[in-house]
Amino acid sequence: MTDGILTSDQILAAAQDVLRRYGPAKATVVDVARALGVSHGSVYRHFPSKTALREAVTQRWLDESHAVLADVMSADTPADVRLRDWLAALSGAKRKKALDDPELFATYMVLVNEASAVIDRHVADLIGQIEQIIATGVAREELAATDPAAAARAVFHATTAFHNPVHASGWSRPGIEDDFASLCDLILLGLKPRRRE
Amino acid sequence: MTDGILTSDQILAAAQDVLRRYGPAKATVVDVARALGVSHGSVYRHFPSKTALREAVTQRWLDESHAVLADVMSADTPADVRLRDWLAALSGAKRKKALDDPELFATYMVLVNEASAVIDRHVADLIGQIEQIIATGVAREELAATDPAAAARAVFHATTAFHNPVHASGWSRPGIEDDFASLCDLILLGLKPRRRE
Repeated sequence: MTDGILTSDQILAAAQDVLRRYGPAKATVVDVARALGVSHGSVYRHFPSKTALREAVTQRWLDESHAVLADVMSADTPADVRLRDWLAALSGAKRKKALDDPELFATYMVLVNEASAVIDRHVADLIGQIEQIIATGVAREELAATDPAAAARAVFHATTAFHNPVHASGWSRPGIEDDFASLCDLILLGLKPRRRE
Repeated sequence: MTDGILTSDQILAAAQDVLRRYGPAKATVVDVARALGVSHGSVYRHFPSKTALREAVTQRWLDESHAVLADVMSADTPADVRLRDWLAALSGAKRKKALDDPELFATYMVLVNEASAVIDRHVADLIGQIEQIIATGVAREELAATDPAAAARAVFHATTAFHNPVHASGWSRPGIEDDFASLCDLILLGLKPRRRE
């Protein structure tokens, strides 16, 4: 492969393969360059450091995992339905990643732990999406919340056991679907408008 | 020390010290016996195996951590107040354990991971206490829940980020008190009785 056609996306795909093959502790930029048949300078032209490359790989993985959320956000459904769908999509995407390819998932858990800025932005983005659903719902009187931003954080934290990778080992236990449904019921009751009393 | 006065509680206290000093990977029953100045046979008379001893130490630690919950359970407060107090007491007890003595806490995280039956019973007991608060509240019309058992599981899962030790590293971050309060607000709104519509 010549450097002329090397794209960032090709590097990220190769980096993912290398991370998976050698493990996050051993994988180097030289391994990535070798896999692509280019010099390590060619990789550094796209990503100025090993850390930058690993963060970009992590970011890409997170973006891929959550692409499905965009569909839910743009759906023309009542806010309570949209919030439940969004929570199911988030936990479903995370579970799929964890159960379909546990080895790659474990690799990413290591990356995620070292890329706290990437994760902080990612979490802020997710909470922002929940806030948007709640604020829209409040405006349409489909949901009630005195402080949509605080409510969005509460919803995100409330569903931790179903989307935070540290809980992945419990995601195949029997009854988890029922537990998730009960939790969504509780959250949506908490956000349901009340008649004026 | 003579065997005649050796109690299970003395053994458990010594085992905790030994686990802390040598780490869970290295600590042995012989170390515990030596610390007490008795034969290892004396320890085995109380605990038939190393596993039984470690499980008993774990159980004692969990019981101690949650002794404060009994006070909340027996308080004569409205169910919504009692539920919030109970959740605050649980997360407060866990945070105190984690922040006051991180080394001992880390030791117990290892024990907890190997004692899944102890943990399962412990979690079932906690969910049982929440269910009791909710069921009492429903009977007094202070709370509403069509299925108190399912609601109790939902409340337990909803507060995972604030009581599950895997999240201990986040328990000293700024804003956690506000996040916990917002989450309790959401949960209690979800359980608040509605006027018949």
